[in-house]
Amino acid sequence: MKIAVDAMGGDHAPKAQVAGALAAVKAFDHITIQLIGNEELIKPHLTDHERIEVKHTTEVITSEDSPTKAVRRKKEASMVLAVREVREGRAKACISAGNTGALMTAGLLHVGRIEGVERPALAPMLPTLDGEGFLLLDVGANVDARPEHLYQYGVMGDVYLRQVKNRKNPRVGLLNVGTEEGKGNELSKAAFARLQEADFNFIGNVEARDVLNGVCDVVVTDGFSGNILLKTIEGTAESLFSILKTELTSSTMNKLAAGVLKPSFKNIKEKMSYSHYGGAGLFGLRAPVIKAHGSSDHTAVFHAIRQAMQMVEEQVPGVIERELTSSEG
Amino acid sequence: MKIAVDAMGGDHAPKAQVAGALAAVKAFDHITIQLIGNEELIKPHLTDHERIEVKHTTEVITSEDSPTKAVRRKKEASMVLAVREVREGRAKACISAGNTGALMTAGLLHVGRIEGVERPALAPMLPTLDGEGFLLLDVGANVDARPEHLYQYGVMGDVYLRQVKNRKNPRVGLLNVGTEEGKGNELSKAAFARLQEADFNFIGNVEARDVLNGVCDVVVTDGFSGNILLKTIEGTAESLFSILKTELTSSTMNKLAAGVLKPSFKNIKEKMSYSHYGGAGLFGLRAPVIKAHGSSDHTAVFHAIRQAMQMVEEQVPGVIERELTSSEG
Repeated sequence: MKIAVDAMGGDHAPKAQVAGALAAVKAFDHITIQLIGNEELIKPHLTDHERIEVKHTTEVITSEDSPTKAVRRKKEASMVLAVREVREGRAKACISAGNTGALMTAGLLHVGRIEGVERPALAPMLPTLDGEGFLLLDVGANVDARPEHLYQYGVMGDVYLRQVKNRKNPRVGLLNVGTEEGKGNELSKAAFARLQEADFNFIGNVEARDVLNGVCDVVVTDGFSGNILLKTIEGTAESLFSILKTELTSSTMNKLAAGVLKPSFKNIKEKMSYSHYGGAGLFGLRAPVIKAHGSSDHTAVFHAIRQAMQMVEEQVPGVIERELTSSEG
Repeated sequence: MKIAVDAMGGDHAPKAQVAGALAAVKAFDHITIQLIGNEELIKPHLTDHERIEVKHTTEVITSEDSPTKAVRRKKEASMVLAVREVREGRAKACISAGNTGALMTAGLLHVGRIEGVERPALAPMLPTLDGEGFLLLDVGANVDARPEHLYQYGVMGDVYLRQVKNRKNPRVGLLNVGTEEGKGNELSKAAFARLQEADFNFIGNVEARDVLNGVCDVVVTDGFSGNILLKTIEGTAESLFSILKTELTSSTMNKLAAGVLKPSFKNIKEKMSYSHYGGAGLFGLRAPVIKAHGSSDHTAVFHAIRQAMQMVEEQVPGVIERELTSSEG
């Protein structure tokens, strides 16, 4: 199985991409990685070549580029070429830590939607206190969602959790301003009614304050609210760690005590880190397209590759298509 | 100036309410507090009676009550009586830590909207790293907002920050999924255009991850997204403190080190606490109606009373009315 990796996207590219790819081919002996990007920048990090191919290109889509324009004009950009490898059947899946909007555009344009899917969703796994994590759909692929879209997110999330995360009967919750039925805005009320008809395990409304406690396995919401949820978690955690750092270095005594606790703080950071959950999947496309976090290190890239591999092996797009078709019948 | 306090709403009622009232009359010698609730439960905590009146009632609206039904049926409930004190001009403002929906209903019904205000907003001050805080409108009074509502939230937030918090030229930001113009859903795009015409200092889109860094003084958004933002901050902070507690008590060494750092952890909790910012104001009503947090202790009640007092002194409702009228002309 070949997986295409945009080697140039993200804050630590191409170093993190190359190191993640090396770790992945070492861990999984049935995969080949194609690194796409500037050969001169990739080569210095490439300590081994077994099952790693490099496809050279110098064009790059930056985070400042306008997504649609960039995908249309920069036809030789590393990200576009990675997506095209999938389109043309040479790779089974692709990964990029670059411009999110551009990857969504390229994925939709070149890989295309699964039949029956109205709107793809961008969906990361987010950490929970119990270490299990939950899948959040959508965080911004579709900011003006309709109730049917949220229902389809439920189908896709349910399939992913069952097939890839081996969870039995995943609990699907609707993000809302209260847990009681009848709460919410027009969209969430209509979505609630639609979700109640679903075959999957819809547990009702869930509140933002409970999602980190693992109240459910899948949270569905429109891309606007999901984006707010995601970025608020990140921002609050960053702020707290920043205050913590200031406080713990404010005196010599504090520094000594903080030194003792260093492994504990590391544990906490790791618990709250999404890097071992993989990237955000673009659910609803005909093949796995994974958006790794812009700040991905080699571990995050490794897990994104593993995630893409598992999604291919478990035929996630195919199962989603089957579920959507059968529930219509 | 008399301020009515629902003594029975909230997790620590009536003890926190009575203690908060006692602290307030001690600190501000021109105010009188009317505590409304069960006299038998209030009296044991009432160590002093100067400028404190008690209005007895046994009826209470609970957090389980349906807001509209409760306000209509429980006419003698402590919360309803507190709001009616304002309506009938005996009190200048009122405070409750009880059922949020019921307080919004009672406020709208009995105190009424300022002329020109389309929808009131529920607006708390939230903590920022620099200790200044920002005002968030709306967190759930109006979950299906229109662009004009968000513009009016900007007017109300600007007035509050100038009059009560003495901030010069407060920066008003629109919560969105990206900072660039043109980002967002239908509502936020239309609201952006409307806000650009405003007389106040509209600084454009702000992202959820930046609001705790104090990127602006006022954040405007629809009540659904604002509620998600608020509850995600609360949930993330609670989760982190909970992991921290588990880690820091996991060994004797850790416990010793954590003991040294106790004052620092206390500092952090206080920095992240909203209790000294007062409660959430129901902006857009003809007199200050303040929703104190359900978990308010006496400090939070004290600050909510102080906030109500300042809003009366600075004539916040009157200034809002004037600004809305002048901007129309």
